[in-house]
Amino acid sequence: MTIDFIIYRGNDIMVKTYVFGHKSPDTDSITSSLVMTNLEKELGNADAEAYRLGNLNKETEFVLDYLGIEAPELLESVEDGANVILVDHNSPAESVDNLENANILKVVDHHKLALETSYPLFLRFEPVGCSETILCKLYEENGVEISKEIATLMVSAIISDTLLLKSPTTTDDDRVAVEKLAKIAEIDAEEYGLEMLKAGTDLSSFTIDEILALDAKQIDFKDVKSIVNQVNTADINDVMAMKDELEAGMNKIIENENLDLFMLLITDIVNSNSQVIALGKDASLVEKAYGVELVDNTVLLEGVVSRKKQVVPIMTESA
Amino acid sequence: MTIDFIIYRGNDIMVKTYVFGHKSPDTDSITSSLVMTNLEKELGNADAEAYRLGNLNKETEFVLDYLGIEAPELLESVEDGANVILVDHNSPAESVDNLENANILKVVDHHKLALETSYPLFLRFEPVGCSETILCKLYEENGVEISKEIATLMVSAIISDTLLLKSPTTTDDDRVAVEKLAKIAEIDAEEYGLEMLKAGTDLSSFTIDEILALDAKQIDFKDVKSIVNQVNTADINDVMAMKDELEAGMNKIIENENLDLFMLLITDIVNSNSQVIALGKDASLVEKAYGVELVDNTVLLEGVVSRKKQVVPIMTESA
Repeated sequence: MTIDFIIYRGNDIMVKTYVFGHKSPDTDSITSSLVMTNLEKELGNADAEAYRLGNLNKETEFVLDYLGIEAPELLESVEDGANVILVDHNSPAESVDNLENANILKVVDHHKLALETSYPLFLRFEPVGCSETILCKLYEENGVEISKEIATLMVSAIISDTLLLKSPTTTDDDRVAVEKLAKIAEIDAEEYGLEMLKAGTDLSSFTIDEILALDAKQIDFKDVKSIVNQVNTADINDVMAMKDELEAGMNKIIENENLDLFMLLITDIVNSNSQVIALGKDASLVEKAYGVELVDNTVLLEGVVSRKKQVVPIMTESA
Repeated sequence: MTIDFIIYRGNDIMVKTYVFGHKSPDTDSITSSLVMTNLEKELGNADAEAYRLGNLNKETEFVLDYLGIEAPELLESVEDGANVILVDHNSPAESVDNLENANILKVVDHHKLALETSYPLFLRFEPVGCSETILCKLYEENGVEISKEIATLMVSAIISDTLLLKSPTTTDDDRVAVEKLAKIAEIDAEEYGLEMLKAGTDLSSFTIDEILALDAKQIDFKDVKSIVNQVNTADINDVMAMKDELEAGMNKIIENENLDLFMLLITDIVNSNSQVIALGKDASLVEKAYGVELVDNTVLLEGVVSRKKQVVPIMTESA
């Protein structure tokens, strides 16, 4: 691994490397920023530092509380020429402000490719369920020991992204990693995982606007400018009880951001279904994509739990 | 490593995987397609097959003749839904026809990033001198033995791309790989390398149009639609003797392809300089980028040997 800049320690000039996941961070984005930063330090980049691009969700809070560690510092934008490492995302729309003027050293991700650069860089993408599955391999390939804390961060994210290995995004690599990491972390993956996922479904302390920003991604389905937000729950009815307020909040965002579509996925993590609320002038794209009919702006999509695998490609195809 | 499709051998349905480098293939593109195909087969993808997107250059012919192996088959386009693996390139402009409708499984490359996908995939990019340096690591990480033939293919490409480790694109990883691979290949890297590079400078059998297509890359410097072609030589005067004919050929291509700039780099592999011939309405971009003056459309750029490191970023910045 080659890093193109020189750190002049003698002259007190240090070149910091910002390491961060996507906006509206989930457990994978937060833990991967910590785990990647640790790997960088182990490999000699002492000035790597983990950051977050937004507030923690309840699930991630559960993980950090379990380990008794602090959340990374909040980052809003980076200075021109800043060295950055992206984890769990690569789309500039989901990244830090001023990314276009930063120097991207590395990207570790498992999403579709939406980045262009004018220079070569280190990229490690695999079509697996979670960025941490890739980071687990990078630790092994570089002969860096995975501590109990690092293993807990990794396994938490894999359980989170794959909904306890039940999402269709799950690959054999994720299963192998969970088995191995759970041992190092000294946890029962099933028991710890369900407790963690349930912690993530607690919406009681959030305002409607906060719920709508928790895991919101800007995704354009061809020309259809959209936000797709996913909220996990143990009981869809709990969330649907707030339908009127959610719709009012969604309509406000549609107007402010000039969106064609706002798609809210309320995902039942126990039964693996998603109730969708779709608003905006192109809400009918959901009907076209899944061959369903929206009644009062909503429909149940059975078996749909993965935005990446069961929403983005199908909606893009139909747009 | 996970492959998303199923090969139904029992029903005689085989899903071929096309493995290829860029158009106007150089030694890295040809050898990487062979080396990556071998790795895929070793990892269980029996239907991987190497292809080339254009005619071999003299240098690559030297390498294949040295080993007594056949060139990969020529590929012009792929069918809708075809499985492909890209090596040594990722820009659709440099790739196979109909790439937009293919299913890209993997990309191994060391260039800037110029690809978008609607699905996650395997990407392995490192900012090193040659794709084969990355492939050498992939063999090691996957515990696949590097045979004498594979080592010769790898080391030839690294010597080619780094001009015997003298180009500014050379990294420590390339040096380590060459040392290791030369031993397995049982060659003296310096001696074999110079012979190989010199074989590549033999232009006697080529027409002017062929010379202008040998290592031509379509690169847009912001809005400036350009072709940058690089021709290696042991003596710049030999090539400049054909200046009038080269300019006539370049002007024809500028007109046919509606280019703003055609930049021909005649690179002296012994002294590490490049004589540039620049034509087109934006030829002055070369003057602006390097602070030089074109006289009769030409100028010597001292120390410039790398299109990727010493041309693309500087020209893009100045455009």
